[in-house]
This record gives sequence, structure tokens and C-alpha cells, in this order.
Amino acid sequence: MKKQMVLRTKKNDMSSQPIGIFDSGLGGLTVAKEIFRQLPYEDVIYYGDTARVPYGNKSKKTITKFSLENADFLKEYNVKLIIVACNTACSLSLQALKKKIDIPIVGVIEPAVKRAIQISKNGKIGIIGTNSTINSKAYDKKIKKIDKAMQVSSKTCPLFVPLVEEGWLNKDITYKIAKTYLDCFKRRNVDTLILACTHYPLLIKVISTIMGSKVKLVDSASEVAKVAKTTLKRIDSLSEEKEKPSYQFYVSDEPAYFTKVGEKFLGRKINCARKV
Amino acid sequence: MKKQMVLRTKKNDMSSQPIGIFDSGLGGLTVAKEIFRQLPYEDVIYYGDTARVPYGNKSKKTITKFSLENADFLKEYNVKLIIVACNTACSLSLQALKKKIDIPIVGVIEPAVKRAIQISKNGKIGIIGTNSTINSKAYDKKIKKIDKAMQVSSKTCPLFVPLVEEGWLNKDITYKIAKTYLDCFKRRNVDTLILACTHYPLLIKVISTIMGSKVKLVDSASEVAKVAKTTLKRIDSLSEEKEKPSYQFYVSDEPAYFTKVGEKFLGRKINCARKV
Repeated sequence: MKKQMVLRTKKNDMSSQPIGIFDSGLGGLTVAKEIFRQLPYEDVIYYGDTARVPYGNKSKKTITKFSLENADFLKEYNVKLIIVACNTACSLSLQALKKKIDIPIVGVIEPAVKRAIQISKNGKIGIIGTNSTINSKAYDKKIKKIDKAMQVSSKTCPLFVPLVEEGWLNKDITYKIAKTYLDCFKRRNVDTLILACTHYPLLIKVISTIMGSKVKLVDSASEVAKVAKTTLKRIDSLSEEKEKPSYQFYVSDEPAYFTKVGEKFLGRKINCARKV
Repeated sequence: MKKQMVLRTKKNDMSSQPIGIFDSGLGGLTVAKEIFRQLPYEDVIYYGDTARVPYGNKSKKTITKFSLENADFLKEYNVKLIIVACNTACSLSLQALKKKIDIPIVGVIEPAVKRAIQISKNGKIGIIGTNSTINSKAYDKKIKKIDKAMQVSSKTCPLFVPLVEEGWLNKDITYKIAKTYLDCFKRRNVDTLILACTHYPLLIKVISTIMGSKVKLVDSASEVAKVAKTTLKRIDSLSEEKEKPSYQFYVSDEPAYFTKVGEKFLGRKINCARKV
């Protein structure tokens, strides 16, 4: 077991503790990027469960087991807040995590849903994600819980993640695949589309081209960072020390692939350590 | 732990024991299908490690740990032969398995490589597979070990597996992606292409259309079934009882997705049990 770690010499209150983020792999780096941007004085521990990625086609029981293990790993680093950056884990396991882990936990679903409801003018919201996220209906249920009048439609886009990892972000083929997946939303006249997978922000140019400028895209990474900030303020744990923060990345498998592709996600160098 | 199981009431020699097949997921069902066809009187236990699929981007150490666990699972069923249907597991872990497991083990690489060398006329062999399989250079090394004069070129095709699982076997997009991946082999004038991933036989129509009729495709499923038969004959363990065999499928995650997609691979109904 790893020992608790204090990343910088600061007064030993909650504000100096790092924020923990976990994801099934590297998709959550889009969330990390937003945290770095919106909360520039926070230390961050990122954990990608790359030995067991992807979570997209796995069962609730399996995902919950993995998620609890991931949260336990972050707890060893004395994190003050855990962000579950994986949509599948949020869809299937957020309640179990909140019940069992005694640290504030923020998921990616609710922030995106609230934003979508807020900006939709015609009440027609679309959702795209992996098989598990879409089949779980977690987004649909959350939207309906907040506003019954919303009309929700959703679609699995299983090729988007491998397209992103392949780096085919601006190819003809990518536009064609996106058109195949997204045309149904245009027929249904949705005016707001939630990107319910952390890989999808890298396809934002493709998706917005297909959907047209009238359709608003909601990227959960940006929304979850706002909620993380509000949560830390509420519990009086926002870091106020204007030092250069420390970012640490851990993975459950060898870091080579994570580092190579992850640097494209983050737009910065990753010095990655493997989980023991 | 599961108890040893005798599937049918037969004389208690090796021939009545089942063949074990494991794969990271459902791709190995193309191997199972060939075993059913070429060895029609053998009982088969198939194990798909669907909780940890895919193996394609994971490290040697991780894959070896998973592979040993999978082989141990099959051993509990008293199998007489283990077929490692996963190319990644064969590339990275076959030696470790052969060292640690006291049952004959057959992988998918050597049978395909021997066949390719046998049928290539110009000595230019191409290989397509997942990141791990191609990066491991296991096929290249095996070819060079048998015949140094062969010219080998290889290419990762990471979108082929999700295309197969999406069921896009005959779409325009699939042809376009295949063309992007395969054109390099045409430029290099290869006359033999090894499909080094068990999912790829489902794309055989697309791949052969792109490559043209002069290029021979080597599908490891068919070759490994021949080697399994030879191996069982050699150790005098081929089943000679002309009864209807028993096929059992186990997975490490919930069976819903495996069953749904797997039935397309096998062309028959799957009654699947989850591993406890």
C-alpha cells in the first residue's frame, strides 16, 4: 500500500491536498485539462485504469468493483475530492462510490445534464456515448428527473473512441462515420447534444460540422471542472497558493501507450508512473 | 474453485476430455468455429476474458498474468489441449504459458506463419493485427526464424475490431478504412497477407476486395484447427466417439454482449455461463 503523500510543503489543511481524477484510461485527460485550466493552483493525481480499459462494454458489477478499487488507489494519495471522469463508471457506479467512499465525489453526468437543460431552447436533447453509457440510460434518467418535459434521444457511437486513439480527427472517413451516427439527431431536430464520453471533445470539430452551428454541444469536461470548483469552495478547500501545481499520472498498465496518445489529449508532456 | 468435469460418459482416457480455447473476448469464436468444423467430435470449453478485453494495447506482463489465469481456469475443466486463440496473448505470452502449464498448448501464430511461407510465391508477406500483436513483432520474428529470405511488412489496423463488433462488415466506410490500411501492402507487392487477429476473418470479403484476387489471405483460425488435430493425433487423444459434442462458453463479465455479438461470429446459438 502506498503511503499518504503531501505534494508540496504547505499548511496542512484540506486546501493543500490534491484533487484525484480517475478514468478507465486516457479519455479522462480531457477532464484533467479543464481542471488544469479552471483550477490552476490545484495539485492533481490522475489515475487511468489502462490494464482494464475500456469499461464501455462491461457490466455494472464489474465496473463498480473497478471503480471502488480506483477510488481506493486515489485515497492513498490523500485526495480532497475525487472526479470520476469515466462516463461508464458514472453511469453504472457513482451511487455505489458515493455510498462507500468518505470523500466528496463528482461525476461527469449531472454537470453536463444541467448545462444541457439550461441551454436547450426547444427541449430536444441528444446524447452520444459508448454502449454501456447509452444502454444504462443514466443521462436520460437524470434529464427526466430534473425536467420531465425534455425530449431525449440517444445513440451509441462505438467507433468514435478508436478513431480518436488512431488520431483520425480530421479525415474524410471520420466525417462519414460521424454523419452515419449523427444524422438521426438532425431528423429529430435536437438543438443540444451532450458528448457523453470523454474522448469525444477531440472530435468536436467533426461533430459540430455535421450537426451545424445551430446545435449546441455540451462537453462534460468543462462542466465538471466548474462543479469541482464550486464543491471545493463550499467545503473551504480551494487551493489559494499561487505556486506551480504538481500533476502526477498513474496507470495500471505500462505507460507507453497512455503517454504517447495522452500527450495529444493534454497538449503537454506526461511523466507517467506505473501503478505497482 | 471448480471441480474437474467429465462432459460425457465415456471411457476415462484423454480422448474424452474437452479441448480448451481462450481468448481476450469473442474474437476467438472464429477459432472455435473452425474447431467445430474440423474436429466435429470434440467437446469444447471456450473462455472469453470479457471483463478485461481487449488485450491489444496492454503490456507483456499484464497479458502474461491474464493468460496464466485463463489457462488455469480451463485446467479446472480437465481439458486435454489448450488453444490460445488470442493473437496478443500468443505474441506476448505463449512461451510463459508453455513453461508453466503442463498441458499441450497451441497458439495461432506458428500455424499461420507456416502456411504463409508455404503459399507465398514472391516471398513478400504482409501482416495485419492490433497494436500489441504488430508491435511485438512476434509474426515477423517467427517468419524470419523459419525462412530468413522472406520479406515481411506489417500494419496495425485498430479500427477493424470495432468495425466488426459494430457489425459494419459490408459498408462503404469499411471499404474506405480498409483501403487506408491496406494500400501500403499493394505498393510493397505482397502476395500473401496474414490476418493476425481473430476478428478479421469477418472482414475477409472487404479485405480480399481491396487486396485483389492475386493476394492470398491466411486466416489463422483455419490453420490452428489443423494443428490442433495433428497434435491430438500425435498424443493419441483425438475423440473417436461420433456423438453430438458438448460446447460450453464461459466469460469473465456478464454474458449479454458476448452472446449477442458472438452468435454472429459463430452462426449458432450460444448458451453462455458467466465465470464466478
